[in-house]
Amino acid sequence: MNSEPPVPETSVLAVASHVGKHNVGNKIAVFVLQSLGCDVAALNTVQFSNHTGYRQWKGTRVTAQEITELWDGLKQSYLDRFDMMLSGYVPGAAAVEAVGNIAKELKEKSQTKPGSFFWVLDPVMGDNGKLYVADDVVPAYRGLVHHADLILPNQFEAELLSEVKITDFASLRTAIETLHSRYNLPHIVITSVSLPLSAQRTPLDNSTTSRTMSVVGSTRTSTGKSRLFSITFPVFDAYFSGTGDMFAALMVVRMREAVASSCLKDKASWLSEDDVDALELPLAKAAEKVLASMHEVLSRTCEAMEAELNAVPAKEEGLNEEERAKKAHLLKSRAAELRLARNWGCLRGPTIEYRAVRLE
Amino acid sequence: MNSEPPVPETSVLAVASHVGKHNVGNKIAVFVLQSLGCDVAALNTVQFSNHTGYRQWKGTRVTAQEITELWDGLKQSYLDRFDMMLSGYVPGAAAVEAVGNIAKELKEKSQTKPGSFFWVLDPVMGDNGKLYVADDVVPAYRGLVHHADLILPNQFEAELLSEVKITDFASLRTAIETLHSRYNLPHIVITSVSLPLSAQRTPLDNSTTSRTMSVVGSTRTSTGKSRLFSITFPVFDAYFSGTGDMFAALMVVRMREAVASSCLKDKASWLSEDDVDALELPLAKAAEKVLASMHEVLSRTCEAMEAELNAVPAKEEGLNEEERAKKAHLLKSRAAELRLARNWGCLRGPTIEYRAVRLE
Repeated sequence: MNSEPPVPETSVLAVASHVGKHNVGNKIAVFVLQSLGCDVAALNTVQFSNHTGYRQWKGTRVTAQEITELWDGLKQSYLDRFDMMLSGYVPGAAAVEAVGNIAKELKEKSQTKPGSFFWVLDPVMGDNGKLYVADDVVPAYRGLVHHADLILPNQFEAELLSEVKITDFASLRTAIETLHSRYNLPHIVITSVSLPLSAQRTPLDNSTTSRTMSVVGSTRTSTGKSRLFSITFPVFDAYFSGTGDMFAALMVVRMREAVASSCLKDKASWLSEDDVDALELPLAKAAEKVLASMHEVLSRTCEAMEAELNAVPAKEEGLNEEERAKKAHLLKSRAAELRLARNWGCLRGPTIEYRAVRLE
Repeated sequence: MNSEPPVPETSVLAVASHVGKHNVGNKIAVFVLQSLGCDVAALNTVQFSNHTGYRQWKGTRVTAQEITELWDGLKQSYLDRFDMMLSGYVPGAAAVEAVGNIAKELKEKSQTKPGSFFWVLDPVMGDNGKLYVADDVVPAYRGLVHHADLILPNQFEAELLSEVKITDFASLRTAIETLHSRYNLPHIVITSVSLPLSAQRTPLDNSTTSRTMSVVGSTRTSTGKSRLFSITFPVFDAYFSGTGDMFAALMVVRMREAVASSCLKDKASWLSEDDVDALELPLAKAAEKVLASMHEVLSRTCEAMEAELNAVPAKEEGLNEEERAKKAHLLKSRAAELRLARNWGCLRGPTIEYRAVRLE
């Protein structure tokens, strides 16, 4: 295997949660970024014992003031040179604004050197129609999302930001075009679209039994038009935590890789010329590689998960029904943790199976 | 390059500082452990913007109570299965005790299955004759070090624990024998011995100009006798932060690797039979590999450091002498950060250059 990193020297500021055990938040993001050759500064927004999918956890949140102080600490020691920033879960509106201020400052500093700073923002607010942050986090994100270069909302978060309900292909297009126009957003990837995208022919058409999902992306033209593509992939029958964080970290690396050897890297927000087709966008190329890695890691995780669950004794003495159900949930959550450390090859050199298709 | 991890599935609890930017504490330990195939739970004892070598930093310490709560959080979700624990910098005596309690609990649980848990303790207290923790941290470590399987003190910390001043080979031996006997410690590596070890012939004998240092290790016999070895290596003319943390994380992996395929892994504390020679100890084999990785990473870091410092403008307008000196120190610290993310091959497959020699 080639040990040469896929990106040139890249310094990334990663802002997300830290969770003692488990591959979610910055735990996963930092490892993915470092594994692929980035130099990472991690600013952790919470320290929890385990991720909240377990429905119980202990630990503390970092305040907006602490975030700002950590940033001031970096600045006063000349440690604020970053090529990219990745922000994920941030607890509360004030903290979201504090993180936004860091990004704005880095953006401002890069004005004289177009393309020298790129902010990937995962606007973590909720999923499947439910908020899991306080209500005032939504306007906080609406207020700063126009500073981002690439956002990675899931379908629900895309609805919250665009204020367009996504129910079919037409409304999906409207949502993305609204995000491009209202926030002047260069790049968008909606990470979990479960619509049947009828315009799309996929390599999965024959396997009618397996459930699929799509990511849908677009890089705007100079006149604000969308260039839509989607990538459809099979869904595993299990709930994994940390997939969003892994997706985001991989996107950071693969976007950087996709522009590194072209003149795009010296253009603001790495915006492709208007005549570049959706399928030729660095964003589409990056997303293909990212999903390839994701699919391989999730396959390995599924295999390990089954083995681990099979090893658990079927029934345990001394527990009532409620306790048994709780324990079963905890053990299932544990078994579904992403298997990363032993599957480094999936991150570094995945085989692309699912290709982008143009959505028209 | 072989992407197969050097260790079997290994779950490690890593307790140390977290520093936003920079490869020290858990930042470096977690990456090293994960890169080499371990599944890591990180319990961060501080969150600082940068490491304290910069002489200025911002951030917060985690209290003893918070450490205990994070641990309780892991336990209540069945996330407390660990094959190994690595503990590094812990702020204050109460927090040291809290970390010690975690180790004791894991040790206790492993009693029925000898060799199933191994604690590597880096008793971070000071260096070069100076404490950098509060005075009461010293007795706190003395009170719990007998639960450890392997300790990694520097020369000063070995003196603090053994209460033997190390001035020559005889006192070095006395210090190590005292650590073995007083604390019943199975394995010891003193990570920075600057004595001329006259008994030793090294491959460096011809290069009289370069400064060298040694690590000195020993695994006790069943009757408490020491089996001493040393490995001498050249010292780079620069101050690097995080080398202790990197050394410790690599020792975790290489000790596990050294015993994994032998029956030693099922013996308490992985203690070799009495007839095993010092040079054949898993500890000596592990230390050789660890130093090989260290030397390669430090070489790469030195090269990058020189390039970075040469790129800094010689003189800057508008700063007085004091400000200039401060800035120079900060830039030098920045340049000396360990280059890890792009030098993964040095961790995975280093070339062993410096061999252990028996100290008699």
